[in-house]
Amino acid sequence: MPDVVFSVDQSRSMTEQDVPGHNRWHPDIPAAVEVRPGQEFRVECREWTDGQIRNNDSANDVRDIGLDRCHMLSGPISVHGAEPGDLLVIDILDLGPVPQESGPAAGQGWGYTGVFSKANGGGFLTDYYPDALKAIWDFHGQQATSRHLPGIRYTGITHPGLFGTAPSAELLAKWNQRERDLIATDPSRVPPLALPPNTSDALAGTLRPGSAEFDRVAGEGARTVPARENGGNHDIKNFTRGSRIFYPVFVPGAKFSGGDLHFSQGDGEITFCGAIEMGGYIDFAVDVIKGGMDTYGITTNPVFMPGNVEPRYSEFLTFIGVSVEHDSNTNHYMDATIAYRNACLNAIEYLKTFGYTGEQAYLLLGSAPIEGRISGVVDIPNACCSLYLPTAIFDFDVRPSASGPVRADRGQAAVSS
Amino acid sequence: MPDVVFSVDQSRSMTEQDVPGHNRWHPDIPAAVEVRPGQEFRVECREWTDGQIRNNDSANDVRDIGLDRCHMLSGPISVHGAEPGDLLVIDILDLGPVPQESGPAAGQGWGYTGVFSKANGGGFLTDYYPDALKAIWDFHGQQATSRHLPGIRYTGITHPGLFGTAPSAELLAKWNQRERDLIATDPSRVPPLALPPNTSDALAGTLRPGSAEFDRVAGEGARTVPARENGGNHDIKNFTRGSRIFYPVFVPGAKFSGGDLHFSQGDGEITFCGAIEMGGYIDFAVDVIKGGMDTYGITTNPVFMPGNVEPRYSEFLTFIGVSVEHDSNTNHYMDATIAYRNACLNAIEYLKTFGYTGEQAYLLLGSAPIEGRISGVVDIPNACCSLYLPTAIFDFDVRPSASGPVRADRGQAAVSS
Amino acid sequence: MPDVVFSVDQSRSMTEQDVPGHNRWHPDIPAAVEVRPGQEFRVECREWTDGQIRNNDSANDVRDIGLDRCHMLSGPISVHGAEPGDLLVIDILDLGPVPQESGPAAGQGWGYTGVFSKANGGGFLTDYYPDALKAIWDFHGQQATSRHLPGIRYTGITHPGLFGTAPSAELLAKWNQRERDLIATDPSRVPPLALPPNTSDALAGTLRPGSAEFDRVAGEGARTVPARENGGNHDIKNFTRGSRIFYPVFVPGAKFSGGDLHFSQGDGEITFCGAIEMGGYIDFAVDVIKGGMDTYGITTNPVFMPGNVEPRYSEFLTFIGVSVEHDSNTNHYMDATIAYRNACLNAIEYLKTFGYTGEQAYLLLGSAPIEGRISGVVDIPNACCSLYLPTAIFDFDVRPSASGPVRADRGQAAVSS
Amino acid sequence: MPDVVFSVDQSRSMTEQDVPGHNRWHPDIPAAVEVRPGQEFRVECREWTDGQIRNNDSANDVRDIGLDRCHMLSGPISVHGAEPGDLLVIDILDLGPVPQESGPAAGQGWGYTGVFSKANGGGFLTDYYPDALKAIWDFHGQQATSRHLPGIRYTGITHPGLFGTAPSAELLAKWNQRERDLIATDPSRVPPLALPPNTSDALAGTLRPGSAEFDRVAGEGARTVPARENGGNHDIKNFTRGSRIFYPVFVPGAKFSGGDLHFSQGDGEITFCGAIEMGGYIDFAVDVIKGGMDTYGITTNPVFMPGNVEPRYSEFLTFIGVSVEHDSNTNHYMDATIAYRNACLNAIEYLKTFGYTGEQAYLLLGSAPIEGRISGVVDIPNACCSLYLPTAIFDFDVRPSASGPVRADRGQAAVSS
Repeated sequence: MPDVVFSVDQSRSMTEQDVPGHNRWHPDIPAAVEVRPGQEFRVECREWTDGQIRNNDSANDVRDIGLDRCHMLSGPISVHGAEPGDLLVIDILDLGPVPQESGPAAGQGWGYTGVFSKANGGGFLTDYYPDALKAIWDFHGQQATSRHLPGIRYTGITHPGLFGTAPSAELLAKWNQRERDLIATDPSRVPPLALPPNTSDALAGTLRPGSAEFDRVAGEGARTVPARENGGNHDIKNFTRGSRIFYPVFVPGAKFSGGDLHFSQGDGEITFCGAIEMGGYIDFAVDVIKGGMDTYGITTNPVFMPGNVEPRYSEFLTFIGVSVEHDSNTNHYMDATIAYRNACLNAIEYLKTFGYTGEQAYLLLGSAPIEGRISGVVDIPNACCSLYLPTAIFDFDVRPSASGPVRADRGQAAVSS
Repeated sequence: MPDVVFSVDQSRSMTEQDVPGHNRWHPDIPAAVEVRPGQEFRVECREWTDGQIRNNDSANDVRDIGLDRCHMLSGPISVHGAEPGDLLVIDILDLGPVPQESGPAAGQGWGYTGVFSKANGGGFLTDYYPDALKAIWDFHGQQATSRHLPGIRYTGITHPGLFGTAPSAELLAKWNQRERDLIATDPSRVPPLALPPNTSDALAGTLRPGSAEFDRVAGEGARTVPARENGGNHDIKNFTRGSRIFYPVFVPGAKFSGGDLHFSQGDGEITFCGAIEMGGYIDFAVDVIKGGMDTYGITTNPVFMPGNVEPRYSEFLTFIGVSVEHDSNTNHYMDATIAYRNACLNAIEYLKTFGYTGEQAYLLLGSAPIEGRISGVVDIPNACCSLYLPTAIFDFDVRPSASGPVRADRGQAAVSS
Repeated sequence: MPDVVFSVDQSRSMTEQDVPGHNRWHPDIPAAVEVRPGQEFRVECREWTDGQIRNNDSANDVRDIGLDRCHMLSGPISVHGAEPGDLLVIDILDLGPVPQESGPAAGQGWGYTGVFSKANGGGFLTDYYPDALKAIWDFHGQQATSRHLPGIRYTGITHPGLFGTAPSAELLAKWNQRERDLIATDPSRVPPLALPPNTSDALAGTLRPGSAEFDRVAGEGARTVPARENGGNHDIKNFTRGSRIFYPVFVPGAKFSGGDLHFSQGDGEITFCGAIEMGGYIDFAVDVIKGGMDTYGITTNPVFMPGNVEPRYSEFLTFIGVSVEHDSNTNHYMDATIAYRNACLNAIEYLKTFGYTGEQAYLLLGSAPIEGRISGVVDIPNACCSLYLPTAIFDFDVRPSASGPVRADRGQAAVSS
Repeated sequence: MPDVVFSVDQSRSMTEQDVPGHNRWHPDIPAAVEVRPGQEFRVECREWTDGQIRNNDSANDVRDIGLDRCHMLSGPISVHGAEPGDLLVIDILDLGPVPQESGPAAGQGWGYTGVFSKANGGGFLTDYYPDALKAIWDFHGQQATSRHLPGIRYTGITHPGLFGTAPSAELLAKWNQRERDLIATDPSRVPPLALPPNTSDALAGTLRPGSAEFDRVAGEGARTVPARENGGNHDIKNFTRGSRIFYPVFVPGAKFSGGDLHFSQGDGEITFCGAIEMGGYIDFAVDVIKGGMDTYGITTNPVFMPGNVEPRYSEFLTFIGVSVEHDSNTNHYMDATIAYRNACLNAIEYLKTFGYTGEQAYLLLGSAPIEGRISGVVDIPNACCSLYLPTAIFDFDVRPSASGPVRADRGQAAVSS
């Protein structure tokens, strides 16, 4: 096992760790540690909400979550010799939930999938499912089951949701400008169009809260929710063990940070408040390609090569969506987001005929290893997306047949009171 | 080999066949033939433009294409006993290019990938590549190479781009209404937002041009470009051999039609004027699930199960895009279409460092078996999509390394004069 | 489609073709045609018995088969410039059953799996199943079903059983010597240990029967049953479309011949009288690596790279065997053949609990895409082999469970009268 | 993480643990612990030689190994309610090397592949490589590299080599009888044909050495080397995470034991002294199918279903062997063991042309995730086996080409002094 360069005590908040992490992107958050090219090292991570969600049967914690604390990241890790313009080469050697422990923190043998309420966060289907929801998953080695989703068991596609390099001051300014411009187009929208910098519950590593430097960093630091040029919250389920990622470097030392480990996730992470969220560990190897950004034309996003160990499913039930709002018979032009939303809604309607509630089906699609594909994006006016649901995750036959669906009482999701 | 129920002479236009097909969706196009549940049968298809594109080194034919003739479909095939509300169960038993022939029609040993000019059709990257482009592919069994894309050879993911059932009169009216509404938002846009019914070059099966019935059908018939509730032009690359599709039935007999066979295609079919387009044959088995639309909640789109024979690639170079216009630093809210466009542009920039032109890379992404995935669609404000390019299709090492890309003169695409 | 360089009229015996093939290995069988490096070409093949097996419900034809006529090969094909010591590089571009025809010859929409009687050929389990058996398979595109094996449908792993280069005179002499030596250890064994040269029913291409040259070649020519240094009857199911094979060259022009096309086969081809046997076509590309045998140390067997399109199954029921004769409690030392036989017998006993006869299960294991693996060959004294049966080929749940097997009347195999 | 029901302190010998394991099969070895159907639990394991092999550059430890101490097993674990005739259902939830430690015991960040000397153990190619050999592998998450095999890096196919249930007294007597009979056919052979019961270095769990019960058990107990009816040392590389195994039960409580964890292994484990050997942990869930042996006809060997997470390689270089001794031109009848040996030798000769020594290539084939398949076992007189070597494990192009192999100095294996 490689050396732990960033450690976490899962019984305490990230704010209380000996070396705290951070929850904003800013070039001036001090590095917690330095590593060297060629080194292998372990990073321990808190679950992304820093432990706000509990292993119980109520979604009240999801409903009342404090989003300003999210995501709780481990880092920054400085890489010796990395300079702006380089590519940071990161190998994911291993990752997993908190080892050799059971306990109340997500990752200690369990994880959760949540759906935010529309009033506090929202989600991909928030217009259809506006209330907070939750499913608790128990880990069985590499597989997961949920008492809130009986009849389902699958192999997780374990990965980190969020890692990235620090932005330069210039890049940070660009982010803040463009996101403020977007918010300004509809500033009172619920949920909001984007999240601006916000000092509430900000954490900036070893910068002391109350100091002038902390206040500046907290006041400027970008929120961690979206993916951006530095990587960030990609939520790409294929950042699996064995992946190699090439991150652009924008500041000396690269200042690599992250967390938001997922036991599993479906493409799109449509539930927003989680894939199957967990704390845990992640092992890396690191290297640098000098000047690689220019050499390979990699400027706006990382490039990566997925690992070669993913759950192998071979039979899928595929749902299709096009960019039409069917209720109102309204056509949107080449909108893949709406197309994928329709594919999700079609899958949910289908699963309801087997006895699941829509809420359960929604939670399933956010967490199971489903594929979401851009299928056609040129056939005017309708974008077409498709969603691949592995049939083997069900302990009954979920395929259409002349005999009709095996309908049963399949319980329900955790809801709020 | 099953009986041919719809045959095509590849040396003649679809309009000149003994039993012509059609290029509009309308419930009153007469069935060309009837089949029975349980039957296996072959359908022969013209390439989707009905032979307008030729095996040469100029993209003038793409530039000057007559889009009103597209897509040339084979059918309709009536299924005995199918009624509105049923699910039509279609198995794709086999498909391929025109067998045992060589010749000037696409599918006779060759196919093409094209990019329309912005003035006549456009495409996914039309703002970046506004001129007509073309690559000719030679078939080597299941593999393809192109003199316009040296250094590349891949196994095609062969599939039909377009099959579907006939809309009812009511459904057709809904389509026409919503698409007209969309067009009305920007009626002079180039390329247009959608294509309204158009009698020019319309073909309606055995309805005699000039007859009142023909004129009515041609005047009302929906264009074939988008996917809609009946299936239609999905351009989903995973409708491979062995797939089973469950189509909603809207008219007595279902009236199943299609064509637009592809030797290969990347997710998104971003080139628009083609994946690798070809004429050929497709073998089906057919069955019916009575009342299946209600039983399984399948109303707005078909559901399908992909076949289990697809090219097996295991190493990918993955490009990421988010919903930001980087040139203008403009943020779009959760727009997966823009995110995927950026992933494509990032892939193109990368491939250019190896010596391909941007035009060549664009043609490659439209035709090779690349995966395009919806990765994150909740992390406000940035949708995140990812594009998986198999590394084994290149005859050189396309991965990033400290030694830099193997740059070479890699020729160029066919362009217009 | 590439040019046909060796054609077959499926309504006639190989002996009656305009250019007949051959059924013995000998350097002096004249080349039927010459091809050049870089050329793509098609070879048409008769089913391996030259049409002795019919599409009916009796195994009498299998029981009474004339083995001296087998295998009927297409060729030899001379490759311009190939010399002894070179490697012949063969790409399998495509292959399939007889296209665009139905009829009485295997490959015309159907194929068969047979088990020889112990008295005339035998097979892997001949001590357990000594009588002739047969199952007829109907082709549905890439899938097969059998009226003799209800409840089963699978995607074939289509491949040629037998291709190879001609032996030199010296190599042929070595073969004849070592096989005669083996036969001499038990010359009256039934079935025999090996098949010596035999002029009965010999065919030697364009050599005229009755001529002195024909008599010499027929008297010396090696039988085609085993795999040897030249390739030959490998019966490796992974010679699929897209494979590249590197054959040693022993005579000028290489003299490449073959046939024995299989619609599908399980590892081991345990039924002997067939995988799923068919006539059909196979498309090749050819090249030469000069002096490649020495350069790469390839002297005793071909090397190959399998294609990347095989049926994708992901759930298997695995049966294990060790090198013990359980009935007599006799231990054999590290005998992988016995270990695999026990794995097969274990699979058969298991399938019998679902209602199949042992005969049906035997025929299934010879034809379906099962994996047979050498698992442990060092753990003295027991070799251990394992057999992987894909569960998805059954239309019922074939996995063990507390509720016991779904037993049903599952018909029976074709037997002899 | 599930409860540890059998723990091991890796700094001490198995003989010195608080609850020692055992290294013989006998029904009267007392259960170390009892578990209940439905329970999930962890078992910790010593590396199979109990720590005799060290992380250094000499194979002297392999040469001088004490085989009487092997395999050191954890257990027996009694399963509440299991009775003879039942099937024990074992799910492998997780397994891995020793977590969170580095140190001198195999499994603490490293493992080894060894080849025994012919005088002390032998191996699959002992007539070709009679001296002791060793390669040390460093673990990088799921991947391994070796300073003794530069240029190679692969994802391990992690699995246990050996688990099984206890034999009944009757079954044990059968084993001892048949193995003694085999040994009697050549009692002075080196290496021996089989290993008879032997009290030297015997360990029998909590039975006190020197007691009469211990002496009886040690005198009768079967050696652990081969796989037998109870499972045992299968060395099947596909017992991966997620596998479910159905073991026959022969004694009350089943008495389940095992160990011999492998970081990786090639089919055949041809090196004998190891795949990549390690100590570590394995997590199980357990259940029972009452009367399952009869119900499912599972009597002579376990049945299993492999897990769905294995390294995904898609390009292979395949070597073929037939049952001929080429040096002496001797033909063996349908001998799959010899055929596979030839396939291995062919692979070794090939790899030597790239600069590896034969010893290195031998060590590679025993440890990397290569497939070994029974290809044809009916084509008299030659059995045919094939060996699939993934090309992606090499950091150079290992495929044949006209330009010849990339020859380099590739170091050497650890040898004995």
